[in-house]
Amino acid sequence: MTAPFSTLSEFRALLEAATGPDMASIAGAKERNGQLTKPPGALGRLEELAIWYAGWRDTDRPSIEKPQVIIFAGNHGVCAQGVSAFPPEVTVQMVANFEHGGAAINQLSKAAGASLDVVALDLDMPTQDFTVAPAMSEGEVVLALIAGWAAVEPETDLLVTGEMGIGNTTSAAAVAAAVLGGDAADWTGRGTGVDDEGLARKTDVVARGLALHDTTDPLEALRCLGGRELAAMAGAIAAARHHRIPVILDGFICSAAAATLEKAVAGSLDHTVAGHLSAEGAHERLLDALGKKPLLSLGLRLGEGSGGTLAINVLKSAIACHSDMATFAEAGVAAG
Amino acid sequence: MTAPFSTLSEFRALLEAATGPDMASIAGAKERNGQLTKPPGALGRLEELAIWYAGWRDTDRPSIEKPQVIIFAGNHGVCAQGVSAFPPEVTVQMVANFEHGGAAINQLSKAAGASLDVVALDLDMPTQDFTVAPAMSEGEVVLALIAGWAAVEPETDLLVTGEMGIGNTTSAAAVAAAVLGGDAADWTGRGTGVDDEGLARKTDVVARGLALHDTTDPLEALRCLGGRELAAMAGAIAAARHHRIPVILDGFICSAAAATLEKAVAGSLDHTVAGHLSAEGAHERLLDALGKKPLLSLGLRLGEGSGGTLAINVLKSAIACHSDMATFAEAGVAAG
Repeated sequence: MTAPFSTLSEFRALLEAATGPDMASIAGAKERNGQLTKPPGALGRLEELAIWYAGWRDTDRPSIEKPQVIIFAGNHGVCAQGVSAFPPEVTVQMVANFEHGGAAINQLSKAAGASLDVVALDLDMPTQDFTVAPAMSEGEVVLALIAGWAAVEPETDLLVTGEMGIGNTTSAAAVAAAVLGGDAADWTGRGTGVDDEGLARKTDVVARGLALHDTTDPLEALRCLGGRELAAMAGAIAAARHHRIPVILDGFICSAAAATLEKAVAGSLDHTVAGHLSAEGAHERLLDALGKKPLLSLGLRLGEGSGGTLAINVLKSAIACHSDMATFAEAGVAAG
Repeated sequence: MTAPFSTLSEFRALLEAATGPDMASIAGAKERNGQLTKPPGALGRLEELAIWYAGWRDTDRPSIEKPQVIIFAGNHGVCAQGVSAFPPEVTVQMVANFEHGGAAINQLSKAAGASLDVVALDLDMPTQDFTVAPAMSEGEVVLALIAGWAAVEPETDLLVTGEMGIGNTTSAAAVAAAVLGGDAADWTGRGTGVDDEGLARKTDVVARGLALHDTTDPLEALRCLGGRELAAMAGAIAAARHHRIPVILDGFICSAAAATLEKAVAGSLDHTVAGHLSAEGAHERLLDALGKKPLLSLGLRLGEGSGGTLAINVLKSAIACHSDMATFAEAGVAAG
């Protein structure tokens, strides 16, 4: 589907116009939750998740039938600075691996009962090296936002956005620092596994990017320091809000992209939950800044939407309990 | 199937005769893991889980096709001491709810693609009140162990044992204190939701039980302070070891039952993983004592095998990645 914006300011206006959860559905879901055959609160976070999800689906008894995982892939000019342990060709190779079903996310999305779409974004035309120029022009970042928006199936009832892009932890660290504050060192981590020297180089690259660009505006930070796959994830998360589709955020890179929306317009991530805490060093700081408590913490640091997709079954289980359990009255169980 | 023991000492001998993981399968799984199309270690705990699971299934490329969840239900004489917020009739009512598909565990096992069996253990004949007599005779505890053993399908490839029994957090606290040391207060929690006065009463009940019985032997602790559903879980976990079926432990009560095996014969829980950290206060202490790091921590405190069952999909996902991903060579991806 096409996107209802063609400039950054039109995109911002869409964020500002976004609606909130349906309070009647939340109230109905809370009431139903209190009648289910379990001690009050005994399903812990599953209960909170079900009530939250109900509010975005406009029903007090929702279901999850069509989860969608989308991986956006992009290449980064900043790779010229030697910030990754892998060569940039790996982005194209991994896209082929996704398309042939051989990557981790293929197995994880199958295990979660989710569809998987792969969107490669101009892989033969990397973004500019952000230590020398803005990563993208306004036209380029808007095209990436539109690609993300358009990739979301409106009939989807749960979305995970993932990414692949050699060099993109560097880009995400720069974006996070720009929109959330702090030093380059606070946000720069080892990514797929750089050594101490590589980490020092990455940190310096991030610091130089921050010094070069005026990123007071979070969407400008996305343009100047981000990448096409980060912008596309932001666009997809905004589209999900438009279609009232709850989103499970993946790891550090997805969360950094998402942070630009929240900082552009507060509340833009109210329809999202953090799927997991990744092993990338600064992810915890990033989730804290967004006020998100991760569902899982299993030491993943792969990207590809892997942690978010692993959390799909937690959401499905929460909704299955909420919508399909018997009430005390239906089951003839004493309510204590 | 029938169980190969008819006394506690024969059961102990089986624990002592248990075999370990297959080291060749572990070595093969580690080698395969290193060739998969992801940075080394990027799947975090999923990688460890797959290698561990491979060792118990005697293959370097296992699959999970037939997970089984079993709920054992028992009633407790100690309920006469006013230790629960719910009346004991609720055990029978909830068993009917399980059988009609209305409980949380019905939805969770369906979401996990697992079969669900419910084994009600002499619900009209509660154990003795352990503040006045041993909860069970040797004949009774052996029958419960056998019921647990016999409930495990040998073709199962992943087992979760759960329980239902009004009053059984009191029983589990007493068992945990007996086999792991510490005071009654260290192990007694709010269960399904007793108030401060109820908690003080439970703690006193546990202390009186500990003072009354000689529980130097962990299997005697299970007999004198446990319940039929705790013994049955222990029997099922031992049967799983016999059939080389990995087990996901559920919450506090399951872990307390399991602890009797580990303390009877060290290593008896090597084929188990902790599915989750429950909200029952002493569960963290119990998992620490067993050296188990939970897969999930979502504030559940329901029992029924709910947390363990929620973790089935994590195991399935780990095995799917391990066994079905492409290698670098197969996918033509540069290994970095």
